[in-house]
Amino acid sequence: MFEKINAYAKRCLAFGAGDLDYFNSLLQHKFQPKKTFLLQEGEICQFEAYILKGCIRTYHIDQSGVEVTLQFAVEDWWVSDITSFQEQKPSLVYIETLEDCELLLLTPENKEKLLARVPGFERMFRLMVQRNLAQLQERLFRTISTTAVEKYLDFLNRYPAIPQRVAQHYIASYLGFSPEFLSKVRRKLHNQ
Amino acid sequence: MFEKINAYAKRCLAFGAGDLDYFNSLLQHKFQPKKTFLLQEGEICQFEAYILKGCIRTYHIDQSGVEVTLQFAVEDWWVSDITSFQEQKPSLVYIETLEDCELLLLTPENKEKLLARVPGFERMFRLMVQRNLAQLQERLFRTISTTAVEKYLDFLNRYPAIPQRVAQHYIASYLGFSPEFLSKVRRKLHNQ
Repeated sequence: MFEKINAYAKRCLAFGAGDLDYFNSLLQHKFQPKKTFLLQEGEICQFEAYILKGCIRTYHIDQSGVEVTLQFAVEDWWVSDITSFQEQKPSLVYIETLEDCELLLLTPENKEKLLARVPGFERMFRLMVQRNLAQLQERLFRTISTTAVEKYLDFLNRYPAIPQRVAQHYIASYLGFSPEFLSKVRRKLHNQ
Repeated sequence: MFEKINAYAKRCLAFGAGDLDYFNSLLQHKFQPKKTFLLQEGEICQFEAYILKGCIRTYHIDQSGVEVTLQFAVEDWWVSDITSFQEQKPSLVYIETLEDCELLLLTPENKEKLLARVPGFERMFRLMVQRNLAQLQERLFRTISTTAVEKYLDFLNRYPAIPQRVAQHYIASYLGFSPEFLSKVRRKLHNQ
């Protein structure tokens, strides 16, 4: 059960077996059914979740009721609302399973225990957040500056596994499109 | 010279005097004149810069030549292209001073030395990146889902010190507006 997550950790730092055993002992194994919430707006996020199996969507609902999809995550990714988790303040996002999921969860208390005993894990979490930041930064460039067709092609290029696994209207909401507009973009591409 | 940056570090972790002295010994003090580049697209970022004094803009130029402003930074902030810095790959952004700046720079080599000798600094850098991520995430929500007037009011609310210090067309480029469109938004607000 811990093979994949330990491989993930070891890509960040050469942890010893004792450190990894301790890490593993702090993780909670959880099955979460399809179409259920790990987190809802207003709740305080009590987990960082490593995905062993499944697909998850993080989204925000704006003042006019429009859903903005922030992220899709699949196997070997971590999912959390790090701001809510870190500062223990109410979340602005929903985290929802799109498929049946198998997860390993780390609570804030267990994360603190881990970092106190094995400070090397600070590095893993820093690198995780850095990757998220880089990804989000590139996304912002594209959101602001590219055309609709470019945005969609870029999405297909970056997340080739996602379109087969999630509904079109979620992809529309990731791209900031209405579902009808995404259909139009896809037709346009199909006819080219 | 190191008072402010040490106060910054101590907000993240209770570092001892010896650790802070070592940290300080690794920083390079630099004056960078107004309207010059700390980094240009295609270069590999060799610094994380703590701003003692001044104002800095980070931006990206897209395929059609449009500037997208990513961030403004002032005193007590850090500036870098963390993706380029960390992975030592060519940057996608420009980092330019908008005022005369006084900086403390940390190179990748010195950062590694610091983290090897005082692993506690991993925590400071992790929290830095997390704050950046939270900020960028909120910005993305707003970029995708709010109206032009809301975007501008939100900008004024979040960065009250910036409009006095940077030219309007930079603010336009931060908001994803043309300068003409920003003028229109400001006139609309003024007439309300």
